[in-house]
Amino acid sequence: MRAVDLIRKKRDSGEHTREEIDFLISGYTRGEIPDYQMAAWLMAAWLRGLNRAETAGLTESMLYSGEVLELADIPGKKVDKHSTGGVGDKTSLILAPIVAAGGLTVPMISGRGLGHTGGTLDKLEAIPGFNVNLTLSEFRRVLRECGMGLIGQTAEIAPADKKIYALRDVTATIENAGLICASIMSKKLAEGIDALVLDVKTGSGAFMKREEEAVRLAEVMVETGKRMGKKVVALITDMEQPLGRAAGHAIEVVECIEVLSGGGPADLLELSIELSAWMFYLGERTKSVEEGRQLAQTMIANGRAKEKFKQGIKLQGGDERVIDEPQRLPVARFHVNVASSVDGYIIGTNCEQFGTALAMLGGGREKKEDTIDHAVGIEFRKRIGDRVEKGEPIAMIHYNADAKLAEAKSLIAESYQIGESAPSGERPLIRRILGA
Amino acid sequence: MRAVDLIRKKRDSGEHTREEIDFLISGYTRGEIPDYQMAAWLMAAWLRGLNRAETAGLTESMLYSGEVLELADIPGKKVDKHSTGGVGDKTSLILAPIVAAGGLTVPMISGRGLGHTGGTLDKLEAIPGFNVNLTLSEFRRVLRECGMGLIGQTAEIAPADKKIYALRDVTATIENAGLICASIMSKKLAEGIDALVLDVKTGSGAFMKREEEAVRLAEVMVETGKRMGKKVVALITDMEQPLGRAAGHAIEVVECIEVLSGGGPADLLELSIELSAWMFYLGERTKSVEEGRQLAQTMIANGRAKEKFKQGIKLQGGDERVIDEPQRLPVARFHVNVASSVDGYIIGTNCEQFGTALAMLGGGREKKEDTIDHAVGIEFRKRIGDRVEKGEPIAMIHYNADAKLAEAKSLIAESYQIGESAPSGERPLIRRILGA
Repeated sequence: MRAVDLIRKKRDSGEHTREEIDFLISGYTRGEIPDYQMAAWLMAAWLRGLNRAETAGLTESMLYSGEVLELADIPGKKVDKHSTGGVGDKTSLILAPIVAAGGLTVPMISGRGLGHTGGTLDKLEAIPGFNVNLTLSEFRRVLRECGMGLIGQTAEIAPADKKIYALRDVTATIENAGLICASIMSKKLAEGIDALVLDVKTGSGAFMKREEEAVRLAEVMVETGKRMGKKVVALITDMEQPLGRAAGHAIEVVECIEVLSGGGPADLLELSIELSAWMFYLGERTKSVEEGRQLAQTMIANGRAKEKFKQGIKLQGGDERVIDEPQRLPVARFHVNVASSVDGYIIGTNCEQFGTALAMLGGGREKKEDTIDHAVGIEFRKRIGDRVEKGEPIAMIHYNADAKLAEAKSLIAESYQIGESAPSGERPLIRRILGA
Repeated sequence: MRAVDLIRKKRDSGEHTREEIDFLISGYTRGEIPDYQMAAWLMAAWLRGLNRAETAGLTESMLYSGEVLELADIPGKKVDKHSTGGVGDKTSLILAPIVAAGGLTVPMISGRGLGHTGGTLDKLEAIPGFNVNLTLSEFRRVLRECGMGLIGQTAEIAPADKKIYALRDVTATIENAGLICASIMSKKLAEGIDALVLDVKTGSGAFMKREEEAVRLAEVMVETGKRMGKKVVALITDMEQPLGRAAGHAIEVVECIEVLSGGGPADLLELSIELSAWMFYLGERTKSVEEGRQLAQTMIANGRAKEKFKQGIKLQGGDERVIDEPQRLPVARFHVNVASSVDGYIIGTNCEQFGTALAMLGGGREKKEDTIDHAVGIEFRKRIGDRVEKGEPIAMIHYNADAKLAEAKSLIAESYQIGESAPSGERPLIRRILGA
């Protein structure tokens, strides 16, 4: 078998066998197939597409390029959630404690923020001392002790994905359903889970701007997971505006604590409950999704989810006092309001630009090596459908440096679309559920 | 400007500006753009295509990546011919002497054989002592002295093409009209010529198997050449069977000497005269193509073309006695006939396989590093339309080693398609002329 023949096959719309995919992935991971051949294959695959069988094969091949966690010694079902990312998307920090408090195990391996989206690991690191770089044996100990653990991808997990993702990033071959699916699912299935709930975002703040793209990706991921013997559902959820009121690392942690304390914004609570409910149901903790919703609400109401979060933070070396004293989190030195320049109604947002503005303030990365200011952030004061008066604050910026403040401020102002009348119709947060 | 954005643009069917193409080509040639980004761009360009303006831009950018010969100090017009390659295609060794004898200058930079096609440089090297690796100043001296020179690509000529071609070879991005055009034309235009005749082969022994593909490539090359101020015509010629009776290096040189001596196979003579005629006409040596044909025939009849070939060989260090004593060329030790297994008529050939069989015998390359046995070859005894009896020789193999003889023999036998009745209709050697 030769790499050049496999590139030609995909270029000419051929369908790869499982052996061919294994040859490519293992050869590339071992360094026998050079970057330039993989880059040509990736572009051919991007343009010609990968069918369901190829996608499942690619996922499995990437999964077995590294270690797959065996958590059979930890009692009970293991479940996880994965989100395709957005602005203000912080549900992991809420649902992991809820679901662990409810009796399931959540072995969550997360990523960092890149471009306009935030990353769970970065948010956790806003908590002083929190260590996301556990070894796999420390991770097991934490999981056994408290039922939840949140770490970053280790060198042992799906090394093929790590290498391929870096190459896709510089060869314009990111946005393809088969390649995205294999990248996400190879990492998630390496967690040794029984069930997975996917939160596939769509809208102006998501990678998949159009709902049909999100649905297509969700279908491929659900099918791939099921082919590999896992229970998987996908929720297609709205990312036409930020989730909750906060974007920025420390202020998002604060918002999560609010939700776990029985408060917080309605949309964030709703999505957290819904995702937790599906995790309870797929993890066979409840007989129905509705029962799962009730269990999630109970875990918040009786304070056990908040206690679980505290326990989890402590076990991973973090200062668990932040739960009761959020002022222990990094706080920005300055605050400034962004005012509306007109009267009207919020009819939409260019949500991705909020993420870009946050990165400008120091709260995001352009390149992987960039460091993050956990204190900076944006508080959103208005949501789609809200009435605004000219001069009224629509957002508040938390910042530490003036450098790009003016640019960020005008980007935020422009990202709100304001019309003369309120938008008609409902805007459901959860748009579709696939695989149920 | 960033390479990744240009890859994305071509991936999404965008049209590159001249500046973008220059950025890619000069960045890649200087090593600032890595192989993997160029590989992804090449695959995107292969699948999305390059339009006429992009192709001309790419050609020019690759041309000016290196030195362009300035031959103004050599009097008269400079003309050349380029063939897209086939089996038994040896016209360069015939028309260069004819056209130089007729008073024009032929500064020919040629290639080596790869895969099933032969290369002019390899054929010349069958002549003992012939040196194709002249420096550019030696090349000038030879051109000034005898009006013809035949050398290989030097490091100074179109270095971008050299680097890109090597990458295309291993990333399955060869067969694309725009990329082929830029590769050929950037090298040919570096010769400092006034006019170029293209011999674009089509049929089972050509790279472009279907005539419409050959026409498309020819159109792009003619237009690119004209955009750059050159006179260019393209002849679409038949490669459904080998050209002439011989394939193999030394035996092809012998066949060329036969033609220059007034003999040789009719098809090879016809194509050599036709290509020479167009070179005379485009080089303004004759007022018409018909006058060009007469001049070419005269140069053969009066022996001046043969004398010119002798002079050219001597000036490039070769043993010019081969012209009168062809036995001085390498001769194979063994000969064996390939017999027909049935009665019937030759109705077609799988011509590419003859080239593959020649390579098996040691007369071709699988990889660039392979050495060539100049003595081995295949003599074709039958042509399309000929009657054959069962057991009658249809070809004769010249060989030096038994290793792959049986395999080559059966490949040759099966490459002749034999039917019960003669094929109807004419099979013109010159199918179309473009750009005239």
